[in-house]
Amino acid sequence: MGSRDGSGGHSTEDQVYAADIQSIREAQARIAPYVHRTPVLSSTSIDAIAGKQLFFKCECFQKAGAFKIRGASNSIFALDDEQASKGVVTHSSGNHAAAVALAAKLRGIPAHIVIPRNAPACKVENVKRYGGQIIWSDVSIESRESVCKKVQEETGAVLIHPFNNKYTIRRPGFDAQPLRMCGAEPKGADDSAQSKAAGKIITLPSTNTIADGLRAFLGDLTWPVVRDLVDDIIVVDDNAIVDAMKMCYEILKVAVEPSGAIGLAAALSDEFKQSSAWHESSKIGIIVSGGNVDLGVLWESFHKR
Amino acid sequence: MGSRDGSGGHSTEDQVYAADIQSIREAQARIAPYVHRTPVLSSTSIDAIAGKQLFFKCECFQKAGAFKIRGASNSIFALDDEQASKGVVTHSSGNHAAAVALAAKLRGIPAHIVIPRNAPACKVENVKRYGGQIIWSDVSIESRESVCKKVQEETGAVLIHPFNNKYTIRRPGFDAQPLRMCGAEPKGADDSAQSKAAGKIITLPSTNTIADGLRAFLGDLTWPVVRDLVDDIIVVDDNAIVDAMKMCYEILKVAVEPSGAIGLAAALSDEFKQSSAWHESSKIGIIVSGGNVDLGVLWESFHKR
Repeated sequence: MGSRDGSGGHSTEDQVYAADIQSIREAQARIAPYVHRTPVLSSTSIDAIAGKQLFFKCECFQKAGAFKIRGASNSIFALDDEQASKGVVTHSSGNHAAAVALAAKLRGIPAHIVIPRNAPACKVENVKRYGGQIIWSDVSIESRESVCKKVQEETGAVLIHPFNNKYTIRRPGFDAQPLRMCGAEPKGADDSAQSKAAGKIITLPSTNTIADGLRAFLGDLTWPVVRDLVDDIIVVDDNAIVDAMKMCYEILKVAVEPSGAIGLAAALSDEFKQSSAWHESSKIGIIVSGGNVDLGVLWESFHKR
Repeated sequence: MGSRDGSGGHSTEDQVYAADIQSIREAQARIAPYVHRTPVLSSTSIDAIAGKQLFFKCECFQKAGAFKIRGASNSIFALDDEQASKGVVTHSSGNHAAAVALAAKLRGIPAHIVIPRNAPACKVENVKRYGGQIIWSDVSIESRESVCKKVQEETGAVLIHPFNNKYTIRRPGFDAQPLRMCGAEPKGADDSAQSKAAGKIITLPSTNTIADGLRAFLGDLTWPVVRDLVDDIIVVDDNAIVDAMKMCYEILKVAVEPSGAIGLAAALSDEFKQSSAWHESSKIGIIVSGGNVDLGVLWESFHKR
């Protein structure tokens, strides 16, 4: 299944996707020395609330506190020595930023990280801890991209794109078992749900959600995967995210960030319970994608309820 | 090594302990169906702070949120059917209470739980969730014990003692590897450290620590184990406990209660760094014993600093 074409894409039947089973296996081997094998946790108390068996893949315990090190280390260790020698650059408000800084440190090359001024303090601290060189930008995607481009021109660094990047795509659905794949999005940044409904990429003029890790957009590499291989996108509001986050702390004993709790919020939502995925599944796997949160911000979000 | 005597104790050389390798293996087999195999986590960021490799055995992910289900299920599933039929009783302000309630529920017998009025709300909630019948007592150990005795007399329930119980003792030190065993205690409840210094059981008139799970005392079954088999007791103050707890949340991404963070606090303490255990070890295992904490209380403890 799939063969490389000139642009590095891979084809399945008629549609070309940015990742296939071969590239995923290559990625697995490439990143194995640099990532943790994170545990899967479960809780009979949460199962009783959900009415299904839930399995939490705890990527919040991953290096740099989120799944992003997988894509970042895959991208950076796939570079040849000449490309790598000039370093890497990215723009990100959070977990991808720290992951690129750490992967670059592991490879021993410079990392230039463009960070918008509204990034959570703990995520900026992570970038510093891993030795990333920080360049500030405004919040808009245009400002982030233009500052990033300037750094690229000045340094020759390779861009490790935060989301539209074939080395960071984690394409699901190759498993031999019948598997329903659902995405989860906050109401204030539901571009994937809107795009699926419209049948084309919809880019939002702005986003408004507590889930700072979910404010990114679809790109031309990720859109075909979401369009064709994700069965459904469950949209939840910030209240549901905070409730799920609280449940993660109090019952699962796992410190998650808002974006990391959205999978549980989706699994507990009425929308999901009315879906065919719910009725056809007895076991539900949830990726807890990240755990980088300012404890002060966390408390305020609980307290405001 | 060791053989049963009439009182159920086990002897090693001259000293009789309440647990030996055989009783521990029996316990392991008895409780296996009822407990999680919890993961061991590590963090290079915390290792860098500590100056050693630390391995965190995360018993906060255990059933009922703490290691206590091990002793409770061992005690309750060791009862014969006639003993079990009348139910069990215990007094505890927290994790042992919830663990006894859950283990009794798993065995299908009643659990009477005597809880002092100063118990953390989330731990009381856990007892309720597992169907334990709550009887309130005053805070003093005398009140707890007298209420407990009354319940025993009225119901015929078997006492599952919260700490002085041969089925809940987790005796370390049988491993073939050279292993240094250190305990950790809060300054406001350091009866073990004082007892080791005095060579006899010292019982404190009162305790004062944020670590609500560590306010219990030594008993005649636990004292010989602590006296002979624990190399050293590291005493840390509540500030160090809160610092370690914050590190668990922010870096390890694990939601721990104060008592669960004390092992890390001890590993980072000056006292430990001056000990021979520190100088003779490259790898340090830490038991993260529990994760049941009221988020409001947690925040206040961070905020007060």
